[in-house]
Order: sequence, then C-alpha cells, then structure tokens
Amino acid sequence: MIPNDSIVALATPSGAGAIAVIRISGKDAITIGNSVFKSVKNKELLTQKTHTLHLGHIMDGTKTLDEVLVSLFKGPNSYTGENTIEISCHGSTYIQQQIIQLLLRKGCRMADPGEFTLRAFLNGKLDLSQAEAVADLISSDNEASHQIAMQQMRGGFSNEIAKLREELLNFASLIELELDFAEEDVEFADRAQFHELLNRIEFVLKRLIDSFAVGNVIKNGIPVAIVGEPNVGKSTLLNALLNEERAIVSEIAGTTRDTIEDELVIGGIGFRFIDTAGIRETQDIVESIGIRKTFEKIEQAQVVLYLFESLKFKSQSSEYVVEIEKIKNQFPLKPLVVVINKIELLSDAEVAEIKNKLQPLNVIVEMISAKQNLGVEELKTQLLSFVNTGALRNNETIVTNTRHYDSLLKALDEIQKVKYGLEVNLSSDLMALDIKEALYQFGTITGQVSNDELLGNIFANFCIGK
Amino acid sequence: MIPNDSIVALATPSGAGAIAVIRISGKDAITIGNSVFKSVKNKELLTQKTHTLHLGHIMDGTKTLDEVLVSLFKGPNSYTGENTIEISCHGSTYIQQQIIQLLLRKGCRMADPGEFTLRAFLNGKLDLSQAEAVADLISSDNEASHQIAMQQMRGGFSNEIAKLREELLNFASLIELELDFAEEDVEFADRAQFHELLNRIEFVLKRLIDSFAVGNVIKNGIPVAIVGEPNVGKSTLLNALLNEERAIVSEIAGTTRDTIEDELVIGGIGFRFIDTAGIRETQDIVESIGIRKTFEKIEQAQVVLYLFESLKFKSQSSEYVVEIEKIKNQFPLKPLVVVINKIELLSDAEVAEIKNKLQPLNVIVEMISAKQNLGVEELKTQLLSFVNTGALRNNETIVTNTRHYDSLLKALDEIQKVKYGLEVNLSSDLMALDIKEALYQFGTITGQVSNDELLGNIFANFCIGK
Repeated sequence: MIPNDSIVALATPSGAGAIAVIRISGKDAITIGNSVFKSVKNKELLTQKTHTLHLGHIMDGTKTLDEVLVSLFKGPNSYTGENTIEISCHGSTYIQQQIIQLLLRKGCRMADPGEFTLRAFLNGKLDLSQAEAVADLISSDNEASHQIAMQQMRGGFSNEIAKLREELLNFASLIELELDFAEEDVEFADRAQFHELLNRIEFVLKRLIDSFAVGNVIKNGIPVAIVGEPNVGKSTLLNALLNEERAIVSEIAGTTRDTIEDELVIGGIGFRFIDTAGIRETQDIVESIGIRKTFEKIEQAQVVLYLFESLKFKSQSSEYVVEIEKIKNQFPLKPLVVVINKIELLSDAEVAEIKNKLQPLNVIVEMISAKQNLGVEELKTQLLSFVNTGALRNNETIVTNTRHYDSLLKALDEIQKVKYGLEVNLSSDLMALDIKEALYQFGTITGQVSNDELLGNIFANFCIGK
Repeated sequence: MIPNDSIVALATPSGAGAIAVIRISGKDAITIGNSVFKSVKNKELLTQKTHTLHLGHIMDGTKTLDEVLVSLFKGPNSYTGENTIEISCHGSTYIQQQIIQLLLRKGCRMADPGEFTLRAFLNGKLDLSQAEAVADLISSDNEASHQIAMQQMRGGFSNEIAKLREELLNFASLIELELDFAEEDVEFADRAQFHELLNRIEFVLKRLIDSFAVGNVIKNGIPVAIVGEPNVGKSTLLNALLNEERAIVSEIAGTTRDTIEDELVIGGIGFRFIDTAGIRETQDIVESIGIRKTFEKIEQAQVVLYLFESLKFKSQSSEYVVEIEKIKNQFPLKPLVVVINKIELLSDAEVAEIKNKLQPLNVIVEMISAKQNLGVEELKTQLLSFVNTGALRNNETIVTNTRHYDSLLKALDEIQKVKYGLEVNLSSDLMALDIKEALYQFGTITGQVSNDELLGNIFANFCIGK
C-alpha cells in the first residue's frame, strides 16, 4: 500500500535568506495547512482551487508565527501526486523551526530524505530513473551534468530503455508461444530475424555501457594531478583557467557559492585539480614520504599536469627532464602534460630551446603565461581533448548512474546468452529464462521492478525536502 | 518618481537544497517571465489570473534550463505592489545562475539588498518602520525578538506613533489658527488642556524610550562574561543551560543551523556568553595580560558569572573570596553571580559551609550540578531576572531600533521645549516651530518624511532577495 500520511520538511537550504519554503504532502496536507493558516481574505484553503496562492498568517492558537504565502496543490496535480501545500515564510531559522514544530504537533511527521520524490515515484508521476535524475539535477554544477540530468529527468533514458524492452518483449512473447506448442515443434519466431534483433539490442546496450565512461567523468569531474614544486604558480594557473567563469559568477551577487578553489568547469566539464608536492629525489625521509604521496595522488588522477617555472626549468632542464621521464615510466598510459609557466620572462629563442629539450620525451608540452593569459586557451583545449564529448554534443543518452550501468551490464550478459543459445539451437524454454532475466534488468532501471531495499538505497541519497 | 524597472534576485539562501526561489518584480516582470517560460499546458502567463501557480520549463531559446513552478502576482496585489513572479526551480547553484543570467539578458537587473522591500515601501504597501521590521523578523532567532518584530511588522509601533502624531497635529492646527488671528490676540487652544496633552505625549514617549533598554537586549542578546579558570566546566555549564532548547532543535532534521556554542536562548531571551580567562594574580607577564583582557571583557558584559569548581573552591576559599571582592570593587554596579559547580561532590554540611563563606560578600550565589542538572533552572531564572520583561509580557510596544530610539529622543526634546514654552507663555509662532520639529521626528520613523540617503542606509542592511 502506498503511504499517504502527511510529511513535512524544509525545501529550501537552511540558513539565512529572504524567504524559506516548507513543504507538506499527504492525504491530509490541506486540512492540516488549513488548521494553522488564517487567510487575510478569510478564505478556507479547503474550498480553494488547485494551483492558487494565498496570503495570510500561520497561527499557533492565538499567536501569529508569521505572515506567509501558501501554495495549494490538489492531488493528483502536484509533484508527489498527493495533496500538497508549500508555505513560503520569512527566512528566519527560528520561524522555520516554529512552523515545522507546529505542523508536527498538528499531525505531520518529518519527511525522510527524498521522500517527496519517492511518493512521486510510487504514485506514478515519475519512473525510477527520472526520480534519480532529480537528485542529479539538484547536484549538477556544470553544463554537461545539468544537460544529462535534464534529459534523463524528462524521460530520455527511460524511452531508450522502454524501446529495448518492447523489442525484447515481442521476441519473448513469440518464444513463449512456441512453448505452448512445444509438442508440435513449431517455430513462430523467425530465427534469422531474431538474430538480427539481438544484434541491434546488443549494439544499443554496448553504446549505453560505453557512454558510462564519459558519463561518470561528467558526473564526478576529471581528477587532474598537478605536480610541481611549491611556489611554481599552481594557484595562478588555476586562477587563469578559472578566469572567465569566475567573472560571471561573482557578477551575480547572492548566488556566489563557496568556491572550492580546485574545482574548475572547463567547456562544461568539471575538472578536479589535486595538488601534489614535487617528486624531486632527496635524502630527506620526510621529503621521500612526500614523493610517495605524490605518486599515490597521480595514481588516482586521470591526467597529470607537470608545472614548471620557465627560468628555473631553463637553468635545471637536465634534472627536470629526468623527473619527467620518471613519471612517464611509472605511469606509461596516463596522459601527461608538461606546462611551462611564465614564458613572458623568456626570449623567443629560449622558448624554442626549451621546446627542443622536451621534444625527445614525446610528451605534450604547453608553454603558457598565466599572468598574461598566453596559452591558457590552448591548455584548456588540451584538457578537454582527453574527454570524448561526442555523445554529449550529439545529444545521445549518456549513462551516469552506477546502478544503471550495473543493470545494463547484466542485461548485456543475458542478451549475449540468448544470442549464444540461438546459435547453438538451445531449447526455447531455456532461452525464455535468459530473456526474462534481461527484461528484469531493464525493469530495475525504470522501477517497473523494485523493492523496499532498492528504493531505500536510492532515496537515502536525496536531500531532505525533495 | 518610483522606479519600476524589473529587478531579479535569489530569494532563498544560497547553497544546496531541494528547491530555490528566484524573484522578479517590476512593470515588465510578467512579460519577461513569459518570454522564458513555457507552460506544460501551453498557457501564456500574461493572460493568467493573479495568485496562480504554473508548471512548465524555463527555456533559453530551444534549450531547457529547468522544470519549474511559476507563482504569478499582478500589481498592486503583490509584496512590492508591482507585477511579480517567483520561479521555484531545482536547488542547484548552476541552475540558479543559469536562470538569473538568462533573466538579466532578457532585461532584468540584479536587485540591491532590500530593494523588493524598498519598493513595497515606495508603493505604500508598508511604512518605514514596518519595512525595517521585515529585516528584524528575518534575523530574529528567539521568541522575544520574533514577537517584537512581528508586532512591529503588523503595524503595532506605527499605530502608536500615528496616535501621538494625530494628537500633536490637532494641537498644532489650533496653534496655527492663532497665528492667523495674531493681531486679535485670541487663544483657540485651551492652555490647560494642552499642558495635560503634552504631559500625556511626554509620558508615552518616555515609556517608548525606556523600552529601548529591554528592546536592545532582546535584539542583540545580553552579553554575559563567564569568569573561571580553565577546565572549571564552562562548556558543561553552557550545555546544561542549553539542554532543552538543543533537544528540540536537533529533532527537526534539516532545520538545524550551525550552532554558535556560546549563544543561548533562555526564556525567549538571547544571552551571549563571553569566555574569559580567570583573574588570578601572578608574577607572570603573559598571565597578567590575561587578567587585563578579562577585565576588558567584563567591561563589555552586562552580567558577570564567576564559575568555580566546588572542591577547589572549598580548599582555596579564602583566596577565591579575595578574587570575587576584586571584581566586585572593580565593577560595583555590574550584577555578579557566583556559581559553584559540581556540588554533587559535596556533603550538605560542606555546601552550607561554602554558603556561609560567601554570605558576607553580599553577592548572588548559585550552587549547581551541571552534570546532574541541579540548580540549573534556578540559575536560568536568576539570569532572566536581570531583564525587565514586563513590557514584553504585557505585549506593549518595545523599541528595538537605534534609529527609532534617536528620533524618539529628539521628539521628546521638542515636546519638552513646547511644554516649557507653554509654561513661560512663549509666543505661538515659536511654539509652532518646536511642534513641527517633533512632528518631523515622528515622520522619520514611519517614513512620511524620508530621503534617499536615509532609505539607502536602511535597506543596505537587508539581505538580497528581500
């Protein structure tokens, strides 16, 4: 049975702001709201139309808690599908607490994280992958992750899965039919056509599975290790990379979030810069622990930026070349970009000389001046080139969710079993089992198949109030 | 001329949350909203009724930025009195920024702090003291400050001022009339009645001015210096005092704010506890700097709590008595409470002995066990007794705003001048000037008299989006 008791939560971030929104959903949401709300026009909430706004006061008995605006939604025309009201009150923590406490006394209970969206799912307003996209949308912090979450929330991914499922269902029903006529040994399903169909499903599944590589990067950002001695200009480089984005953000007062200095969005893709000490060999034990840590951090990164100061590199180039080779040998498959900063201090001849020195190493070299903004765009382009954003540009469905990825892998496995069965002329009843398993996996993605534990895991990661 | 260009701001706190609300107000607010909003029911915002809610998408050209709910308010039926829309979007900082940037491109400009409320004032939706109460309401963090701000926002204070102003105006008009008949030397205004009226106005003004003492305390909290050696149990004491309030707050997940450990609300009144080192005399220079700092902090406090551990006090009572006397002599007018903690470690006889030792000092003594919650209620009652909350209990108007306090003082000064003029038979024209000045002071409180600089100062202290 779908629960319909009334749940309440703060839907806006906690802390100081002009207004805060408290959300109540459940069978009795409007009745409870009505019992604490006194409209300035003396209207009863219960008799009002859905999707209307009402000015009035929240009353705790005769005591006025706040002047508020109440938004009224009648089920099923609401986010959750249930009766819902949203109280827009003044943004004082004290007032929020007082109103929520009052609502708890009037019969609401505190909502669990994601419980509003869970109800939307249970009431058929969203499928499971759309519900998961809501959480992704809220945590999206760059263009790419926003675009993917938006597409998924609007049902793009669900449609893709639904199509696969439908094709497979047609196939399954014919196979099942064969089972009913098993004694007659007929084949309703044209095996050649089926083989072609399975190939098509396999192709789509593989494409979706492959998209997870870029999807994961987009969702979590690309870890980039910055190797370089202290004071070599790491933060100047980060600032230069951040340049334009930051300017836009700080223009919009009130929306500036606490900046995590080492997370940058370049071309819509998030990059996480991991600061490391250098790797200069030394006798000093503390330093060599530092080198070990640097290697550990490079291990976790997908790209390595090795940053040098131009004058220092020029004077100690042979030693530095050894260090670069050391990293190359240690991590032969990891993209390595050597960045020479402060080229404004060099003559053209000196720049050419450094390039010559580095050429035999066969690494990517970027000569930049973070201060004068020279070469910074080229470095950005270089960083973006490590991400295959083709699927993103072509607006294809991209899988970002580990749970979906797992289900797709399992579905692929089953499809390949069916294909093999077809090739070795496996009996219909055994093939039917594998098809059912593949269908089951598709169902877990959209939530046609679900259980309390699965739902619990998914919605526990939501924020309160959504 | 009242500005009516379209202003936009985030109205909810920045940061992560389920939803965020972006507010637009101005002549073209609905037109601009309509240009970026696509309703799921294909309705045009422009043709919709006021106080309605609309589900749809914010579109940047063909690109969908978010699925949102739009609240529509048609001026003058809105907070600002102008056309207003509120966009309730998903609580991602990225999405908020994208939508605000889009609205800026469509002709909005970023709102200044408090600019929505400024417009509400300019459009006659609120008077100035009500507008100021909005900011107070948002920053209210306890029952008393909330109650006062609420009363002021609902016009309680304005009514009080309006009454004084009206009585004074009647008086003034009769005096002015006398000026018109100056040559005939008539008195339209009964001097005895006027004297009585001036006394009444003076009485009310004095009451309002006096209320600022408690109003200020309620708004800013009472600073309490806790004197005590390290490890004497200061934080245990604070926790014991905090006990009940904290339990309620932490029950409501999602509304728990970052606790400032040393700010407590007791009986609806805020107390700010200022930690100090002890004042034990010493040869050590660093320590004596510590003593100087302790004295400085006591200077700033309104109440001093001197905290001791019971066993330690028992064994060194004569030295401690000297220290207590030192503080008493240094700050003879400051309430001093000696708190003996950990009385659970003492026998009844030992408790009596300590009380005897302290009696000759003529200070307030509280024997408590923070751990076993003994005497903590008594200590709270003691702290509250330093605040005269009579006016609060009787629901009288309390002045909390320094600006209002200043105006009231000036008005009182003028009224007393008028009274003196009446007693010495001053000419009507001179009296009329003083009355005008008093009326002017009342007008600055409610905003009947205002100028750009005054408004600028007041609204600059508001948060963005309100």
